[in-house]
Amino acid sequence: MRYARTAAALAALALAATAMAAHHEKPERNTLVIQADFAGLVMTGVAKSVSKDLEVFNVRPLIPLYDIRAASESLAYNAQTWPAGTVFVSVVDPGVGTSRKSVVLKTKNGLYFVSPDNGSLSGPAEDYGIEAVREIDETVNRRPGTEWAHTFHGRDVYSYTGARLAAGVIGFEEVGPLLEPAVIRLELEAGSYDDQVFEGQVAGGVDRLGNIYFNIDRGLFERDAPGYGDVYEIVITNDERVVWEGSMPYVKSFGSVPVGDNLLFINSSGLLSVAVNQGNFADKFGIGYGPDWRVRIVKRR
Amino acid sequence: MRYARTAAALAALALAATAMAAHHEKPERNTLVIQADFAGLVMTGVAKSVSKDLEVFNVRPLIPLYDIRAASESLAYNAQTWPAGTVFVSVVDPGVGTSRKSVVLKTKNGLYFVSPDNGSLSGPAEDYGIEAVREIDETVNRRPGTEWAHTFHGRDVYSYTGARLAAGVIGFEEVGPLLEPAVIRLELEAGSYDDQVFEGQVAGGVDRLGNIYFNIDRGLFERDAPGYGDVYEIVITNDERVVWEGSMPYVKSFGSVPVGDNLLFINSSGLLSVAVNQGNFADKFGIGYGPDWRVRIVKRR
Amino acid sequence: MRYARTAAALAALALAATAMAAHHEKPERNTLVIQADFAGLVMTGVAKSVSKDLEVFNVRPLIPLYDIRAASESLAYNAQTWPAGTVFVSVVDPGVGTSRKSVVLKTKNGLYFVSPDNGSLSGPAEDYGIEAVREIDETVNRRPGTEWAHTFHGRDVYSYTGARLAAGVIGFEEVGPLLEPAVIRLELEAGSYDDQVFEGQVAGGVDRLGNIYFNIDRGLFERDAPGYGDVYEIVITNDERVVWEGSMPYVKSFGSVPVGDNLLFINSSGLLSVAVNQGNFADKFGIGYGPDWRVRIVKRR
Repeated sequence: MRYARTAAALAALALAATAMAAHHEKPERNTLVIQADFAGLVMTGVAKSVSKDLEVFNVRPLIPLYDIRAASESLAYNAQTWPAGTVFVSVVDPGVGTSRKSVVLKTKNGLYFVSPDNGSLSGPAEDYGIEAVREIDETVNRRPGTEWAHTFHGRDVYSYTGARLAAGVIGFEEVGPLLEPAVIRLELEAGSYDDQVFEGQVAGGVDRLGNIYFNIDRGLFERDAPGYGDVYEIVITNDERVVWEGSMPYVKSFGSVPVGDNLLFINSSGLLSVAVNQGNFADKFGIGYGPDWRVRIVKRR
Repeated sequence: MRYARTAAALAALALAATAMAAHHEKPERNTLVIQADFAGLVMTGVAKSVSKDLEVFNVRPLIPLYDIRAASESLAYNAQTWPAGTVFVSVVDPGVGTSRKSVVLKTKNGLYFVSPDNGSLSGPAEDYGIEAVREIDETVNRRPGTEWAHTFHGRDVYSYTGARLAAGVIGFEEVGPLLEPAVIRLELEAGSYDDQVFEGQVAGGVDRLGNIYFNIDRGLFERDAPGYGDVYEIVITNDERVVWEGSMPYVKSFGSVPVGDNLLFINSSGLLSVAVNQGNFADKFGIGYGPDWRVRIVKRR
Repeated sequence: MRYARTAAALAALALAATAMAAHHEKPERNTLVIQADFAGLVMTGVAKSVSKDLEVFNVRPLIPLYDIRAASESLAYNAQTWPAGTVFVSVVDPGVGTSRKSVVLKTKNGLYFVSPDNGSLSGPAEDYGIEAVREIDETVNRRPGTEWAHTFHGRDVYSYTGARLAAGVIGFEEVGPLLEPAVIRLELEAGSYDDQVFEGQVAGGVDRLGNIYFNIDRGLFERDAPGYGDVYEIVITNDERVVWEGSMPYVKSFGSVPVGDNLLFINSSGLLSVAVNQGNFADKFGIGYGPDWRVRIVKRR
């Protein structure tokens, strides 16, 4: 996961959401959140035609074209703070017109994810747990009058179904038949800790901010009993070639080191991360991410 | 129209909207949708000052600067799914400070479009039909205290009037005096079908997706009795120079051909289109659009 | 200020807002407006977890990374039209993890601004006046379960506090202890008028539109008794080197001159400005802004 959350962090966040929800008494309306790899307000219009009272948000920036892994990571990352009942629609659908299934995933924390089952649901399934999966029955859950259209299921099926679910026009059981509680998973890997050495990979962060993070969560990292100020030796390799090698302090936050200095820290998703304070570590040192980008981390003792 | 809709498609969509609206009984609030060629939330703030209950969406990405044709196409395209009563404000206004009229167009399907009458309303008028046009009476429908400002009618007149209309502070008849039921039209052209040959132009799609479409709608195309799998010969010319020539199958959707293959299909707006599955046809082959870009399409028999 | 408002303009706008608010009688819900130098809907989700009824807007485009001056200007510019009670959250926080204070500024026109006190609040304080400043008490106003997170106060403190304030879960006095009514100010400067000569600096407008404006507001400019059509001689220098020199008419709006011609005008924020009609003056002539970019303006008599 680009921004995977640790189990501990998730439990804490779920508690927080529950505590906050207790402020309310009257029936609440649920929000629809739409992400896609193209722009426009056509899908939002569908939702408002289902119910003018429905609130809709569109994820920006757009998901990169056809990038199912990015869709999966964005869904899981953005959903982390939303209340139970929120419905997410994801339309990254390079296989539109093939036999991939159109489904609604309900996660254990009460969120709904409407998407083609093409890997986009991998992140939410992993982070929040699968409660149930239903296949969308298009004989019921398709906008009337759109049977001629074969290229824009986001408009005619996904946002329509998501909006009906969020607005309470249909319940989850009316989406369509139950499937096995499983979705297509993208391959993921966890880092390791043996003999005081962390091994893992650069899991993401190669973006506008450039704060890279590893598949090493704070639970695993704490097994090394780190203290703020401890110095760690870090080697980042690409296909076994060393791309960056050096040491930096483990600190609480960016402001703990001078501007321009490197830091090792736990990011807001609970993952061990490396950054330049007010700089872009990935850009500066040409770091990429994925299975070919490995990291080795050892405390200087 | 960049994404023109066919009459048949529109009728179907209107039916769908009506069917969906029947779910509601209590009075509904209408939404304001703002598009402009500049960013910021100043116009949104005007709307919320008119009524804190008003919901507002901003079209992203921005309309290209001063591009009235893009404004017209975006208005018509984005409006296709919204319920009756929705108010669209369009602020692409290169002639601010000249005598172009400020108007509200009401279309036959019950949508409202607030804009300078500079061609921006061409698309909605064509696709949805003109019910009535009123000129905005600025002695009433202008934000108090802004008489000194001459360069931002989007803030002081258009979003203010649109918000008052959407919130029910004024009715349509209070916008200002009725004009002739007409707006300034941008030149458009329809494709032709004679002797089993389609002739037309590349009407749009030269964008992030690159799925180009022609001014040949599905009603016209069906006159050739196409079947999925039929192969069509296509020639695209720019100023009579051949830019692309080849054949491809007519299929249902992207997934009907291998990744990287070309396909001929009906797009979600009901227009005949050409794409590379998971690629960008326009970029790959250097295709543009507009009157100088012609297409000739014939079924291989 | 990039788009500073004059006192006269502000007074007028405030009157307008008051007049508009009078339309309402039932209790109104307040809106949350979030700006940041990074994307995503995580902070929006926090707000919706506080109250599903809360409406949230996200400022786009993003604030440039770590750019506190841009944050300050954007806050002041975008807030100009919003009704009293609106809560703005600004998360441009290069010093996260240092001792900069987390505060809520209430301005004299009844708006709230939640931000680190790092200069981001300079613009709103100047334009709208300081009513009071409170420091956020994180023992109360921090999302439960997030004590382990040290790098994303925007999620855990600012949007959480802003949402609670907007939704009425807490009142302003429950934010935390009162501070001195002051915020960190960014250095600003006003233009001058002596012996019929204006001296000032290019204050902004070096953007997508390129309509540059000076630190000369319309109140000051009127002291020269300008009439539409009067011609002004303008010299723009960078570090005392002349970058542009010429004359242009003072006019009402863009459409008052032919396309491609230069114009001198009062922009929508009430500041003296220079533009090319339907062009980008800053780009065309290589104009920058800031203290090193000076302007001298004299009427041709």
